[in-house]
Amino acid sequence: MDNKALYKLSYGVFMLATKSGDKVNGCITNTCIQAANSPVRVAISVLNSNYTCDLIKESGVFALSLLDQTCAFETIKHFGFQSGRDVDKFANLNVPVDDNGIPYLGWGTCAVISAKVVDSMDLGSHTLFIAEVTDAKRLSDNEPLTYAYYQDNVKPKPEKPVEDRKIKGWRCKICNYVYEGSELPDDFLCPTCGHGKEDFEPIFE
Amino acid sequence: MDNKALYKLSYGVFMLATKSGDKVNGCITNTCIQAANSPVRVAISVLNSNYTCDLIKESGVFALSLLDQTCAFETIKHFGFQSGRDVDKFANLNVPVDDNGIPYLGWGTCAVISAKVVDSMDLGSHTLFIAEVTDAKRLSDNEPLTYAYYQDNVKPKPEKPVEDRKIKGWRCKICNYVYEGSELPDDFLCPTCGHGKEDFEPIFE
Repeated sequence: MDNKALYKLSYGVFMLATKSGDKVNGCITNTCIQAANSPVRVAISVLNSNYTCDLIKESGVFALSLLDQTCAFETIKHFGFQSGRDVDKFANLNVPVDDNGIPYLGWGTCAVISAKVVDSMDLGSHTLFIAEVTDAKRLSDNEPLTYAYYQDNVKPKPEKPVEDRKIKGWRCKICNYVYEGSELPDDFLCPTCGHGKEDFEPIFE
Repeated sequence: MDNKALYKLSYGVFMLATKSGDKVNGCITNTCIQAANSPVRVAISVLNSNYTCDLIKESGVFALSLLDQTCAFETIKHFGFQSGRDVDKFANLNVPVDDNGIPYLGWGTCAVISAKVVDSMDLGSHTLFIAEVTDAKRLSDNEPLTYAYYQDNVKPKPEKPVEDRKIKGWRCKICNYVYEGSELPDDFLCPTCGHGKEDFEPIFE
């Protein structure tokens, strides 16, 4: 079985948030579909190890912000690259809330879906929640962000690892003096401002 | 609730096929996500009124062809715009089959996923199947077809409805004689070939 074949499934990119008592959290997820009409239901799969998953099991409600192509990487990083167990992701954010008091994103987002869990299924690594949509709003006419677009255009391309790049010189961060050569001696002092090695940054070829 | 907000969810476009005994059918669907890892499971929502849905309930297996951007509208029309209750969609098609004997598409398709249903949930309009992926293959490096790309680039744009278009004349389908004027009298006979109104077609502005 070629697991990479599964990567060909197309997804959007979403910020999934919930609130249980005083606890509030949000994470980034891709796996949500509309699963039924009348009543409108969505199915959403959430990693069991995510704090948001625990909180949805408690609260039974969530708000899904559908990110659009204007969404900055910093927003995705904020919600996707750290855990709500370590940091309050909404601490300094001025964001709107839905009818259930759950925050959603007021920027970089084309729509928000509020939903109430009606069933769930533990699939080992993930829990699949089936939820009735209680409210849905369009927020912008921007194109929805797809996972493919995120990978190609939003996520920063990894820089070449330092070990693969050749250093051709060192720049003093204080005065911009440039030392030419790949190795800056440990006891080097900038001839212009007198600062030491710790204030120099490498210049790559 | 603004139902159009739900349209902002991003989807791929798939041909979902199954085989139950001698009965084989396929339809077009959008709503499939990878729902779990180890074992890899997908969740797929299928309209209960679809013949394919009935057959999957019987067979417990399916093959999902993930269409790519080279897929012709005719293929989507063939599987999506007619019912397997009326026509054998695979009758004259030369297509490969997976390990379960289920056909998938050998063209316009970037990957195929074979799966075995492990659970299902009746959601009224649709059934949500949870299925373990038993095989997955990549078939092309073409970009997966998204529903948005299908709408913008694959689906033919509707012609302006007849009632909105102004008729400037009538052409005799027999001899190509052209009558100039928006109204062709009921008793009109073609001066060239002698045929009547029923053999004329409108010429639009």
